[in-house]
Amino acid sequence: MQKRSEETRSRILATSLKCFAKHGFNESSIQEICQETGVSKGAFYHHFPSKQALFMELLKGWLDSIELDFSTSQQESVPETLMHMTSILPAAIASADDQLPMFLEFWLQASRDQNIWKVTIAPYRHFQGYFEELIQRGIDEGSFYDIDPKPVAQVIVSMAVGLLLQGLLDPKGADWNKTARESMRVILKGLAV
Amino acid sequence: MQKRSEETRSRILATSLKCFAKHGFNESSIQEICQETGVSKGAFYHHFPSKQALFMELLKGWLDSIELDFSTSQQESVPETLMHMTSILPAAIASADDQLPMFLEFWLQASRDQNIWKVTIAPYRHFQGYFEELIQRGIDEGSFYDIDPKPVAQVIVSMAVGLLLQGLLDPKGADWNKTARESMRVILKGLAV
Repeated sequence: MQKRSEETRSRILATSLKCFAKHGFNESSIQEICQETGVSKGAFYHHFPSKQALFMELLKGWLDSIELDFSTSQQESVPETLMHMTSILPAAIASADDQLPMFLEFWLQASRDQNIWKVTIAPYRHFQGYFEELIQRGIDEGSFYDIDPKPVAQVIVSMAVGLLLQGLLDPKGADWNKTARESMRVILKGLAV
Repeated sequence: MQKRSEETRSRILATSLKCFAKHGFNESSIQEICQETGVSKGAFYHHFPSKQALFMELLKGWLDSIELDFSTSQQESVPETLMHMTSILPAAIASADDQLPMFLEFWLQASRDQNIWKVTIAPYRHFQGYFEELIQRGIDEGSFYDIDPKPVAQVIVSMAVGLLLQGLLDPKGADWNKTARESMRVILKGLAV
């Protein structure tokens, strides 16, 4: 019974991702999501108190998957780790066929709703802190010169956001794989002692 | 008479920018825009054949203003020009109080509509070409080592997009002025001969 309940929850999440991506957050009703999933409204509210709560679960899941990709990228040295991370981007672009509208909806809702804003912005600040620590470790291990890690972490997060967005919007506009690697190479050269 | 007509056109553009930013593209009707502007539907259609055409005019105006900022940034050398350009970002963030939703709406509509996509993507490719030429000039003047300008131009465009987006979404999350300058410094060091 527990298992079926979790299955229903996963199906609601998968359907709503498609609905939001296709029609947008505001235009997708709980009724529509229930119909598409083939569940009752009662079953829906058993899992999610509101459409916004459902939306935030999707956002959380997306960010968790990025986090997981990062945590499996650890290499011998910090420059190698950073180079290895660039391989996440092309995979993220390739697997995110329908996800660009969703990705933009997250930010759009965040810009309009203080609660979603907090959920959206928290992980960026978290990633920010993650890269700050990584850059500091690079300084400590002697790979990088003694630079303030804060703006460096920000440039890496900004670059990742910008590349992802451009890659999703214009997949054929460039060899994004090569771009990610070359970009990181320039930054690493700029950070080298 | 000509002057009044242009004035009406400007007022429709200003009102629709507010409507789209506040309620989104889909939720804003021509009727609502006309009411808020205080013009008839006839006057509206005299200037814009459709809501989409109006939307694309707004997009074009926004991109033209960035173009203008770039063209006034020319300095002695390419590294100096690039450093000077970083000063555009904080101003863009500061003056774009209400513009983040609009900015995201552009991309969201682009991801859903082939016509808007073409209009949205064209200037990125144009900026891309602009920075490619600038990097090539930097190589020619002896400021940069002999690197492929394409991925370098892409990293600059990506960084700008990412910084703008983060700066708009989280204005207090960092000193974006300092971040833009420090980021460019790292990249310039990475490009230096």
